[in-house]
Amino acid sequence: MTVLEEMGKKAKHAARELAAAGRLREKALFAMARAVEHEVDAILAANRLDLRQAEKDGMSAPLMDRLALSDTRVRAMAEGIRSVAAQADPVGQVVSGFVRPNGLKIEKIRVPIGVIGMIYEARPNVTADAAALCLKAGNAVILRGGREAIHSNEAIAQAMRGALESCKMNPDCIQLVRDPSRESAVEMMQLTGLIDVLIPRGGRGLIRSVVENSRVPVIQTGAGNCHVYVDDSADVAMAAKIICNAKTSRPSVCNAIETILVHRGIAERALPAIQAALDQKNVELRGCERTRAILGDRVVPATEDDWGREYLDYILAVRVVDDMDEALRHIARYSTGHSEAIVTSSYENARRFTTAVDAAAVYVNASTRFTDGGEFGLGAEIGISTQKLHARGPMGAFELTSYKFIVTGSGQIR
Amino acid sequence: MTVLEEMGKKAKHAARELAAAGRLREKALFAMARAVEHEVDAILAANRLDLRQAEKDGMSAPLMDRLALSDTRVRAMAEGIRSVAAQADPVGQVVSGFVRPNGLKIEKIRVPIGVIGMIYEARPNVTADAAALCLKAGNAVILRGGREAIHSNEAIAQAMRGALESCKMNPDCIQLVRDPSRESAVEMMQLTGLIDVLIPRGGRGLIRSVVENSRVPVIQTGAGNCHVYVDDSADVAMAAKIICNAKTSRPSVCNAIETILVHRGIAERALPAIQAALDQKNVELRGCERTRAILGDRVVPATEDDWGREYLDYILAVRVVDDMDEALRHIARYSTGHSEAIVTSSYENARRFTTAVDAAAVYVNASTRFTDGGEFGLGAEIGISTQKLHARGPMGAFELTSYKFIVTGSGQIR
Repeated sequence: MTVLEEMGKKAKHAARELAAAGRLREKALFAMARAVEHEVDAILAANRLDLRQAEKDGMSAPLMDRLALSDTRVRAMAEGIRSVAAQADPVGQVVSGFVRPNGLKIEKIRVPIGVIGMIYEARPNVTADAAALCLKAGNAVILRGGREAIHSNEAIAQAMRGALESCKMNPDCIQLVRDPSRESAVEMMQLTGLIDVLIPRGGRGLIRSVVENSRVPVIQTGAGNCHVYVDDSADVAMAAKIICNAKTSRPSVCNAIETILVHRGIAERALPAIQAALDQKNVELRGCERTRAILGDRVVPATEDDWGREYLDYILAVRVVDDMDEALRHIARYSTGHSEAIVTSSYENARRFTTAVDAAAVYVNASTRFTDGGEFGLGAEIGISTQKLHARGPMGAFELTSYKFIVTGSGQIR
Repeated sequence: MTVLEEMGKKAKHAARELAAAGRLREKALFAMARAVEHEVDAILAANRLDLRQAEKDGMSAPLMDRLALSDTRVRAMAEGIRSVAAQADPVGQVVSGFVRPNGLKIEKIRVPIGVIGMIYEARPNVTADAAALCLKAGNAVILRGGREAIHSNEAIAQAMRGALESCKMNPDCIQLVRDPSRESAVEMMQLTGLIDVLIPRGGRGLIRSVVENSRVPVIQTGAGNCHVYVDDSADVAMAAKIICNAKTSRPSVCNAIETILVHRGIAERALPAIQAALDQKNVELRGCERTRAILGDRVVPATEDDWGREYLDYILAVRVVDDMDEALRHIARYSTGHSEAIVTSSYENARRFTTAVDAAAVYVNASTRFTDGGEFGLGAEIGISTQKLHARGPMGAFELTSYKFIVTGSGQIR
């Protein structure tokens, strides 16, 4: 038996215990939050090891930002766990129920999925968020974080497993893969029967590789090529504020925008205001010919390649469009189905945009940065699904459950 | 471009029209039901061609039963379509909605999935059920039925496409693959980007092949190795009635039972009564040693192989168990997660069984034959999911939808 098979079997066993644990799960979550706070020094020391190695390896600034922990970020991690603990328990919820004409009572009851496998990259807070959400929903979890964060992840997982033990719960509800190699990820993708669902979280390459190679069912998350469309009826100041926020408040995350589409009827007024706002954050613009005609040569010429890029950096592509139809076609072609926004003052255009755009979250007059489990009130998130099956958008504990039908009768036959 | 790619593109196009069709979808469904009734003679003539070929090929009696249509079955098909039409429209439903403290309004809205691919075997009624449910949920469908039913399927699909045209709707909402070869099925499994989800419906071999080879996301359906556990507190007459119904009312379907587990404390009383009931339907019993000690040599000795078999025929495996724990272990090991039943008069055992058994439908004192979209009140079903992601148990139009979040604000940034 390989190390991962053994972890899978332990996880299956732990999951069976967990499904029956009831209120104990909530108690364990509060203990996990306390343990993470209590171990803040050990976690930050481990994180410094990871950061030192990352610096040696020449990691880019946005990736370093994803990896870095601070006292504040560790406390936010603990608060995230508490916030998950405080959510309503999804397990056992009667989703619906009715009595059939023949007297059979049919109830649809929410149940855990079983064992969740997480494959993720640099962000160590995923370790805490994923463990908390899986536990909340009665699932065991196998965490396979990135090599870059291995020390941080081990320190966080150790704190949480200790908390489970202190509550007399099976620590194997939360297991971390010690070997963050390509091989361990590939092996997880083959563990059908032991892992019930695999959630990849990270860059486009990672996600594509898992989606294409996994035999375990996958929930596709993340990759966000998000757009803001500035309608000709838009409030220019609002558009500039939303675009600047959606691009620069945290460029390394998936709900940050990568391209703006500006109606030609407002481009001459809107583009200079948008550029002025972005200049303050040193954002590089890559524009189509019409954009450059308005903003000048400081704007790098955009190529076809730019429309499909997820920069995750202080770079923004800009395209002037003839009308909303052209904007909708551009979005239909290049969007990854994550978050898309319109800035408009037209009721009809708002209505049309929200109906026509096929994405997990469609915004009117707000920043795409709100596509987030915390901002949506889920406590935390295990990822943002960009697929349509099972779950779409931010996924919390509720999205980590399934259901079953319980049918009770008095001898009914068909 | 291959024939299937072209069908996929047409389906994508039709799906976009459909998502916006609103009430017209309901009208089209009623027209489809009328068209199927109107074309009953053509459909039965086509079915006779299929049946004649099947006889030549030496098809087994249960499979012939799945393939055969009659005036009554065609009318039931039309009624099924009407019953789907009469259901509440899942598309556009506001699943939930709330206003965040910052004033953002977040609504979760049900939307179509897009293009559904169906790969199925002998039963021609699947053609009508699947088309109706997909259309109801705003999806286009590509139907790839079995070679055995090709003439029946073509006649049914032609009637339904005609109905769409008569409502001025795009007939490509419903497309039937003309070439029911292995190659066409394999090609469908590769049509990522054109088919959004693939639903295989049929025998275990078909389903396994699709689940293992498809790059398009799959909803696993069907294969049912279902059990009835007869508790020592069971009403023997009720147990015999339920078992006889669950085995013999239609042995060829997935919600029929294949094995019964009988508590040793009631075996001497229950087994003869069960045997007597099954004798009237000429059911062959295959029993463990303890079963044979009670019922005698007429019972064929069961081997390990029998516990895992889906007979789909007038054969039933029988095992005497020491207690409910042994029954639960047997079910956990051999169940395909479809439908499982207990016959008991003990409140505690009913509660424990429904909690512990991990299956789509868990029954107390009722026949497993009720696991069915019609019986569950869904109008019809596109399949019975035996997986935990997205949908579990009978799937109707609701289960063929996804959702998106519409977020409306007044300039909010994060």
